[in-house]
This record gives sequence, structure tokens and C-alpha cells, in this order.
Amino acid sequence: MTDFARTRALFHLPEDVVYLDGNSLGPLPLAARERVGRLMEKEWGELLIRGWTEAGWMESPARIGDRVGRLIGAGPGRVVMGDTLSIKVYQALAAALDLVPERRVVLSDHGNFPSDLHMAKGLIDSLGRGHELRLVAPEAVEAALDESVAVLMLTEVDYRTGRLHDMARLTRAAHAAGALTIWDLAHSAGALPIHLDAAGADFAVGCTYKFLNGGPGAPAFIYVAPRHVERVRPTLSGWLGHEAPFDFEPGYRPAPGITRMRVGTPPILGLAALDAALDVWEGISLEAVRARSVALSERFIAEVESRCPELELASPRSPAERGSQVSFRYADSYSFMSALIERGVIGDFRPPDVMRFGIAPLYLDAGDLVIAAGVMEEVLSERKWERPRGRRPEAAGG
Amino acid sequence: MTDFARTRALFHLPEDVVYLDGNSLGPLPLAARERVGRLMEKEWGELLIRGWTEAGWMESPARIGDRVGRLIGAGPGRVVMGDTLSIKVYQALAAALDLVPERRVVLSDHGNFPSDLHMAKGLIDSLGRGHELRLVAPEAVEAALDESVAVLMLTEVDYRTGRLHDMARLTRAAHAAGALTIWDLAHSAGALPIHLDAAGADFAVGCTYKFLNGGPGAPAFIYVAPRHVERVRPTLSGWLGHEAPFDFEPGYRPAPGITRMRVGTPPILGLAALDAALDVWEGISLEAVRARSVALSERFIAEVESRCPELELASPRSPAERGSQVSFRYADSYSFMSALIERGVIGDFRPPDVMRFGIAPLYLDAGDLVIAAGVMEEVLSERKWERPRGRRPEAAGG
Repeated sequence: MTDFARTRALFHLPEDVVYLDGNSLGPLPLAARERVGRLMEKEWGELLIRGWTEAGWMESPARIGDRVGRLIGAGPGRVVMGDTLSIKVYQALAAALDLVPERRVVLSDHGNFPSDLHMAKGLIDSLGRGHELRLVAPEAVEAALDESVAVLMLTEVDYRTGRLHDMARLTRAAHAAGALTIWDLAHSAGALPIHLDAAGADFAVGCTYKFLNGGPGAPAFIYVAPRHVERVRPTLSGWLGHEAPFDFEPGYRPAPGITRMRVGTPPILGLAALDAALDVWEGISLEAVRARSVALSERFIAEVESRCPELELASPRSPAERGSQVSFRYADSYSFMSALIERGVIGDFRPPDVMRFGIAPLYLDAGDLVIAAGVMEEVLSERKWERPRGRRPEAAGG
Repeated sequence: MTDFARTRALFHLPEDVVYLDGNSLGPLPLAARERVGRLMEKEWGELLIRGWTEAGWMESPARIGDRVGRLIGAGPGRVVMGDTLSIKVYQALAAALDLVPERRVVLSDHGNFPSDLHMAKGLIDSLGRGHELRLVAPEAVEAALDESVAVLMLTEVDYRTGRLHDMARLTRAAHAAGALTIWDLAHSAGALPIHLDAAGADFAVGCTYKFLNGGPGAPAFIYVAPRHVERVRPTLSGWLGHEAPFDFEPGYRPAPGITRMRVGTPPILGLAALDAALDVWEGISLEAVRARSVALSERFIAEVESRCPELELASPRSPAERGSQVSFRYADSYSFMSALIERGVIGDFRPPDVMRFGIAPLYLDAGDLVIAAGVMEEVLSERKWERPRGRRPEAAGG
């Protein structure tokens, strides 16, 4: 049984703050401060260049990749760390399109994170081979899978609404249509159980600064299914994806396995913070995290809806269709959220009218959410004279 | 007048070590430890998500880019930080080839760092438009500039030998031939005066963990000349290169200026360490650094050649043709270097037979180099019985 009082104590949580933005940036794990300090003093400071071998820096993207893999249902040797999520999207899509050369459509949905779509478009333009980025509504994805689709590229949990795709089902449907899948796990890694291997996912990517609490700009990860990896021809063919980087050959030979998805010199400070953040996950069951996330989210929705009927739930009402965040719509979400933040309830705003509240069971409890709902009610009651209830600018209906 | 005793005191240098590998990884600036600790405790810990705006994280790639710009002869707004050097090579080359669509040759030399060549090859294969990566000897570059060359892509200082290209002259020659230039400054930024703007360079890229002492895996930089930047269509079109990233539009619109070369969420821990490392450079004249580097290098060569006649200078003898490192060839360089490192003289080995010694004036003085030469003599004298003088495996002649 997971002891969430114990995990909460492993984080630095500022006084007088209820932190509901861990879906954007997780809080500081206490161990990270110490771990990075030790890295700088004992490894960089004392070992200097020898840190690459003697402190294991060079292998850390693979070692830490395996640690992340355990949290996303990926066996050892299938995940490696590096770069940013946007770069990893590019890398995965370039590899996937190369594996399905006869098809031309990249299928995604309107709810995908814009950077994923931008990177796909940048790659498509660069390839110049007539690929098309086709966007449909999230609920229309399955029906849009036809024989033109090379790659189905989705973010499992919608960054705005928290709407959760059914990874196993959509992966099966994509495969039935002859397409490969790329799953962006930005809002699901550390938030709910993921079973990449079991779902038969082809590629997956994600960041580690949200529910994994790796710190601002922490390194991203990429997963490649073992049945594909030896056929992947890396487009971002950097030296650390080379079979023998320290032979310094002019010609590129991809390393065996997931190592070929490495590119350049890894960000060791960021990896050290992430490594410490992952210590918090030792012995944690994602099923327990999920159960608690659902319970906390249900409680939060109930509290907010009873106290603040002016707010409209923007997330799916069914917990089964929701990730680990709760979003509400309101006419004046931006200034409403600003007022909450001023009072120490930290969520965030996404245009046009969405307020997001991340539910991170490792360090949140029901008391936090009741406090948050109370502050929301308070802010709302002070504004009622400012804005007639229920009125909303037309532009805010999307 | 630059006070190098003062700058030396700004670094942590382990006892009993002469550190001649700052061309691979610079030592720990004392301020970096404190700066990263403060970032973690006060910014990540207390501000949480608000750090992106209130602590200036979001703007730091541009702000720090300007600081690096001052050290490489680039005006404000022409350099931005992010990613790794390999990614920045890809980004620059993709942009440059797009600007010269009618030509097909990327010209480089055999001395270029393999990852630059690998990334170029990966891009060329991805483009599939018949581009050719043409490699010539370093001294044959100028003569190889003909009307087929789209881009001249060179590393200014050869990572193995320290051989220094003439940036101004080769840039002029490239332009005369109708080609654009990409300069990799990995081994020159912080090592010698660079005048990107004055030389008319088109693109430049570099890393910050060598002579700039930013720490293991510190972020890379990219420079784009203002006359090109508004025409650059970023292939790695990530959200932070978007004109309005927080509008979360599905379509990509490149940001004005150098900002469009940003890709994903920046690595804030690494940027903080680098920012502190750049404090050391405040008030430092690169001309003074260069003069001291030449004096130290000349002294080191003289000491080594007089004490260790078995070693052959692999770097150009003329200081004007050399960066800030001195390399020697020896039959058994690998185990020779291992023996030096065991005795606290830290340089490194590059195949097939090169020992590299980085000369970093900020924290090295003549005494260090005399000690190093003495240890080299000692190691050599203990090995003479093992290996007849001058004998060398045939493979080691390259």
C-alpha cells in the first residue's frame, strides 16, 4: 500500500501555497537539491572530465531511461533520455515515416499540443514528399484511420481538458489500418498507469518536468518498440547515437537498440535532478496513484461545482476518460486564475478560457483541494458584482 | 589588464591535478555551485511554475545568448541558447540549405568533428534531394569552393590537432563563390577572439562546456546573421520558436529574429550553471586570453620537446595557425595518457594516436605546464625499456 503522507514529505512545498500546477512543472523533490549539489562538487568539481566514465554520466541517459520505462510500461533498453520533447517528436516521426514509406498522412487531433503539430509540419516541409498533417476532432480519430495514414500521432492526455485517449484501442485500430503510432506521454507519465509494451505502441515520447518532477526543462525521453528499433534510421544522427562514438569515424553507423536515438552530449545537471526525482517513485504503484488521483479529482469537482456553479467543467466528467487534471471554463478565466494565484492557489490558464488544475497524488491530499475550492468560491463571490453570472464573451466558446 | 590570478581563484581546481582537458570539459566555476543551489531552492522550490516569468527562465536563452555573443563577436539578439551542438548543426544546415535551394554541395573537411558530419548526412538523407556532403583536406577547402557549393560547414579549430581555420578569409571566399558559411565554434568560443559579425559569418553554432566552463552537457548556442534571420524557415519548428507560443495556435508562425531558432522547453539548471560560468568572463579581454594562451602553449611545446623528444607535435607549430590546445603524437598515446592521468596530469586521447592538452588561460599558469611536462618526462623515462624509441604501429601514421 502506497503511503502518500510519506511521499508528500519528500517534496519542498512552499508555505501557504496549494500547488495545482504539477501538470506543468512538478515541485522540487528534496533529494534533487542534494543530488545536484553533490554532482557539482564531487563529480564535476573533483572528477572533472573523468565524470563521464567514473560517475556514469555517459550511461545515465540509458540508465535513467530504464527508470522512466518502469513507470510507462516499457521494458529495459526501450527508453532513452535526451533533448526536449519537441526534438523527440521530430525524431520519432522522422523514424516512423521512414518505416512506412508508401503512405503520406500523419493523423493527429485538434487537441494535440501545438509544438507536436509544429514539429510535424516542419519535418513534413523538410521532407518535401507530399506528406499531409491531417487533424480531426479527438473523438473522430478512430474513424479517420484509413489506408492513407502512415502514422497516428497523439498526445494521450489533452493538455487543456485532460481528456484521455484509449491507447490500447487506438493502437490496435491504427495497426489494423496499417499505420504506426506515436504517443506523447507529456501529461500521462507519472499521472496514470501506462502500458506501452502491452499496448503494442510503436513509438512514444514525453517530458519529465510535469508529473515526474524532474525540474524546469528536464530532459525528455523516447521509446521505440524493439520490433522496430533495429530498422530505425536516425535522422538526427548525432555522435552519441553512433555505434562507436569514441572511434570518431567520419561515417555514421547507428548503435544497436535504443541508443541510436541519442543525439548529442547529454545534459548532466538536468539528468541528476531527474534521477533524484525518480527516487520518489521507488516502490510506488501507478495503480495506487491513479486511484488516488481519481478520488481527489472527484472530490475537487464536487467541491468546486457546489461552491462555484458559475464554472463549467471542461474535463470529461467520467474519470475513465480523464487524465490527472481537472479543467474548468469561465468567462474571465485569465484574471480569475490570476486572483487564485495571488491567494496561493496555483493552477494555470490556457486560452481561450480554460483554467487547469493538476492533481498530483504524490504531494496533494483532499485538504489541499478543499482549500483550493474555498478560495475559488471566495474569489468568485468578490467578483459577482463585476460580471453578471453566466455571461461569457462569444470568443470564449471554443 | 586582465588579472589571471584573480580568474584562477574563481574555479574549483582539485589538489594535485594539472587540468589540461578544459577543451573537453571546463572545471567548476565556484559561482555555479551557489547559483544552481539558489535556483533550485528559491526559484524552482519557492516560485514553482512562476519561475518561468518571475525568475526570467523563459527569457534566459536570449539573455544568456547575448552574453555568449559578446565573447564571439556577435551583437545583441543574434545568438540564442538551447539543445545540443549536434541539434544546432542540424538546424543551421537545414536553414542554410533552404536559403540556397539551387545548389547541392555541403563542403567540409576531414578534420571536422564527426557528429557535425553525421548530422549533415542525416539531414541530407532526410531531404532526399541529392545533396552531397563533400569532404576535403583542411588546407584544400578554399580551392574546393566552386559554384556547386551551397554551404561551407567548418569547425574553426580542429578538435584533434588544434589547427585553426582563417574564418574571415574562408568566409570571404565562400561568399565569393556564392556559398553560405556555418562555423562550429566548439573549440574556439572562450579560447580566442572571434568576430562573427565582422567576418560576415552566416551561421555559427557551438557548445559551452569547453572553454566557457558551463558544465557537463551545458546548452549549445546558435548564431544567425541578421541579414538572413527573417528569411530562415525553421525545420525544427518548436513552440518556443513560435511568434506567440502561449497562444497555443495549431499553426506555426516563426518568431521574429533569433528567437525562431529556439525549439523546446529550455534546460534551466544547465542555463543557470552556464550563466554563473559566464560571470567569470566579465571584463575579460579575449585578446588578453589569446596572448596568454599563445605564451603558455609556446612554453609547453618547448618544455615537452626538450624533455620528451619521442613525442611529435601534432598541432601546427605556428601559433597563428593553432587554437588553444597542443596535441602530440606518440606510438602508444592511449596508455601514455592513462599514465599521465594516474599521476594527476589530465589531458585526453583521440584516436589513432593523439594526446590533447587544452590551454585555458583563465585557470592555468606556466607552473602548471612545467609540472605537466615534467610528469610526461617521468612517464616516458619509465617506459623506455618497454618500447624502443620512435617505434610506432603502422596504423598510427594518420
